[in-house]
Amino acid sequence: MTESQLQAVLDYADAHLDESVERLCDLIRIPSVSTDSAYAADCVRAAEWLSDAIKDLGFDASVRKTEGHPMVVGHNVAADGPHVLFYGHYDVQPVDPIELWESDPFEPVLRPAPDGDTHIVGRGASDDKGQLLTFVEACRAWKAVTGSLPIKVSMLFEGEEEAGSKSLGPFLEETAEELKADVVLVCDTDMWDRETPAITTMLRGLVGEEFEITCADRDLHSGMFGNAARNALQVTADIIASLRTEDGGVAVEGFYDGVSELDPEIKAQWERLPFDQEAFLSDVGLTIPAGEKGRSILEQVWARPSCEIHGMIGGYTQEGFKTVIPAKARAKVSFRLVAGQDPIAVRDAFRAHVRARVPQDCSVTFESHGASPAIALPLESPMLTATRDALGAEWGREAALAGTGGSIPIVGDFKRKLGMDTLLVGFARFDNRIHSPNEKYDLSSFKGGIRSFIRVLAALADQQKA
Amino acid sequence: MTESQLQAVLDYADAHLDESVERLCDLIRIPSVSTDSAYAADCVRAAEWLSDAIKDLGFDASVRKTEGHPMVVGHNVAADGPHVLFYGHYDVQPVDPIELWESDPFEPVLRPAPDGDTHIVGRGASDDKGQLLTFVEACRAWKAVTGSLPIKVSMLFEGEEEAGSKSLGPFLEETAEELKADVVLVCDTDMWDRETPAITTMLRGLVGEEFEITCADRDLHSGMFGNAARNALQVTADIIASLRTEDGGVAVEGFYDGVSELDPEIKAQWERLPFDQEAFLSDVGLTIPAGEKGRSILEQVWARPSCEIHGMIGGYTQEGFKTVIPAKARAKVSFRLVAGQDPIAVRDAFRAHVRARVPQDCSVTFESHGASPAIALPLESPMLTATRDALGAEWGREAALAGTGGSIPIVGDFKRKLGMDTLLVGFARFDNRIHSPNEKYDLSSFKGGIRSFIRVLAALADQQKA
Repeated sequence: MTESQLQAVLDYADAHLDESVERLCDLIRIPSVSTDSAYAADCVRAAEWLSDAIKDLGFDASVRKTEGHPMVVGHNVAADGPHVLFYGHYDVQPVDPIELWESDPFEPVLRPAPDGDTHIVGRGASDDKGQLLTFVEACRAWKAVTGSLPIKVSMLFEGEEEAGSKSLGPFLEETAEELKADVVLVCDTDMWDRETPAITTMLRGLVGEEFEITCADRDLHSGMFGNAARNALQVTADIIASLRTEDGGVAVEGFYDGVSELDPEIKAQWERLPFDQEAFLSDVGLTIPAGEKGRSILEQVWARPSCEIHGMIGGYTQEGFKTVIPAKARAKVSFRLVAGQDPIAVRDAFRAHVRARVPQDCSVTFESHGASPAIALPLESPMLTATRDALGAEWGREAALAGTGGSIPIVGDFKRKLGMDTLLVGFARFDNRIHSPNEKYDLSSFKGGIRSFIRVLAALADQQKA
Repeated sequence: MTESQLQAVLDYADAHLDESVERLCDLIRIPSVSTDSAYAADCVRAAEWLSDAIKDLGFDASVRKTEGHPMVVGHNVAADGPHVLFYGHYDVQPVDPIELWESDPFEPVLRPAPDGDTHIVGRGASDDKGQLLTFVEACRAWKAVTGSLPIKVSMLFEGEEEAGSKSLGPFLEETAEELKADVVLVCDTDMWDRETPAITTMLRGLVGEEFEITCADRDLHSGMFGNAARNALQVTADIIASLRTEDGGVAVEGFYDGVSELDPEIKAQWERLPFDQEAFLSDVGLTIPAGEKGRSILEQVWARPSCEIHGMIGGYTQEGFKTVIPAKARAKVSFRLVAGQDPIAVRDAFRAHVRARVPQDCSVTFESHGASPAIALPLESPMLTATRDALGAEWGREAALAGTGGSIPIVGDFKRKLGMDTLLVGFARFDNRIHSPNEKYDLSSFKGGIRSFIRVLAALADQQKA
């Protein structure tokens, strides 16, 4: 790879950035909400859009049916270099509360930002449509300038990442031979800060659970039954309250089994990172860390397991007042896991914890929304080094090796089912409001990300030759 | 009043029962849900329907505007006897969960019951359209047979009973002179059992509260912020859990101030009543009393104050899963009060209890849904005795003097604002599913209730002469 060739590709990407933004807006306009079956046809449309987009780049691509939303698989493996499998997801989170959006979530707008940047605003602008197109557009620039890609690239896009990825495990097993590559590249992560790129090497796992408490066989009137009849909302609130300890920990018995204290070297590295603990909270209107006392926020969100309540509903929740004793109440809860925790053991411990708190004349049912272990990636590998160097060259500073509190269960699946390690390189920012109203992706993320992946592809090609 | 005259009125009512049922069905068809402003016009329609109905019986009646839903007032005071003010409400509870109704809540159906009775099924069939028309139809029979009523009767129907009766206090003050009578007759209560009529002499008060917790200034992603950011649903669940004690009591400081132990004589009377504690709960699918240990169910629901959670919502509650840390959560709570408790002190104590549990960087707002004290009526009065005797004559057994766990705040208003005592006589049954799907009124309640009120009107006329 010559410097001038690389420079030509970078120049091409810069010159055609507007077209890249237009393609991203086209993809955002497809409301591919995976958790709501009303949007199933839109998920298919998004898959077809992506398949067509990479066919344009010379990929042998197709939409593959599953029990749920379809997969997109494409291969462009003419080059000599190593073989990278790129993974992203085209599905997005629901948009509610819709009333807090300042613009239609599925009609993206470009909004000038106070810092001179431009925000691309819409559901999925960052997570994950913007991030995955960042890589696709890098490939497009290579193809446009040199007629081919510098290394072998396969792509896999799924449509159920926000819905528990139920079809993914079986699909990976069926297509294990086809998808096998030297390394997986996943783009679902953040930059360290506006100037510092990052490669994520630690990911928390996730156990997602929903439960419903049933007490009486109908809703009751509190005038007739108040005091005497068990209240399903009270039982549910009691259970939720019992999950956390006074000092911010998790009270489920056995939950911390296998959890180690953070490696002192990593802890020291994190303490050196430019991270403003107060600003992290004050940016969202808070001041007091809610997790375990005596642990830094980075440790709380990257290296400590957590328990959060995501949704709860029961009784009369409309305008006005209704003195009903609700017969049923539902709650959605998740646990973020760290290395050493067994997700199935955590799920079992949670369910036992709940069952022990359901009165004898009431009942509980559970629904699983996934169970995946935490991942800690090997820090030393030539490909990681090459990627770090490429990112450093683009951004003018060394890439941080970070953790992330979020879960990317597929990383575990790639390791277990395909024996592949994953490089996690993303250009999202902390304030992108993913999963929230007014989600956005910075134009500088998109532009710098495309340029970064152009360099990463070159570096991986060169690393092979070295 | 001669026996034969009374018998003629009773016979007329029996012979025209089908027409009475048809009128009740007409009234149920008007969806006068007071807590939802979408039904405001229907509330007006229900008021006009009632005003027209009693004009037919010779009442000087009109619909009176208020800040909320209108009142209906009517007078028929040509007779010599004492003056009764009859109170009822034409508004009804919301119908959700609508999917549990076996028929349209506002298209009443007559359904044969296993015991040979017939159920009139629809929202408001019992509470309070059925109950108030029971009295109106008794007046109709008197008017049809004798051309007049045996005593002076005024009627007052409101449309906000299920919504906190906000307009009622001011209205009673404005119309105090006009509404003054010898006694109030209120029909919002139950029979003791299928064969035993009841007059209710103890009513619990009610403090209704709604609160909203706000933590972060937006919903957050638990992968990024889990552990570190306060979760509004967790805070709300912790507060709800903190309201009750382990042994079924209420944990708000000062809540039991002024509460006396039940009078031993009344306790003994209640123990003699044919009340099946196990059946009371097993009828609704439960087996274990949830209130204070060591107290009977009747004591729990009639003579002990309570705290119930009626509604709670926060976070993502639709299909699927969303790992959001909710910024806001809401809950509706009520306290049932007994004699000796000050509703304002209870409200203040509750709010202090909540505020003490809101983290410093979060906030809470409150909305009041009413605050009314408990009522204990004087057991000895000639009118009570006359009413008891009339009920006994109709049903062939002595009327029970009962308590009720429900609140009828107007009884306190009549006492405070008009200086009037209230006779609470109703023909609803425990299993009428008021406030719940498939609310019904037994045809035997309607028929026996009309006959009972015919006798009560005669007895009050005779009592005056005695």
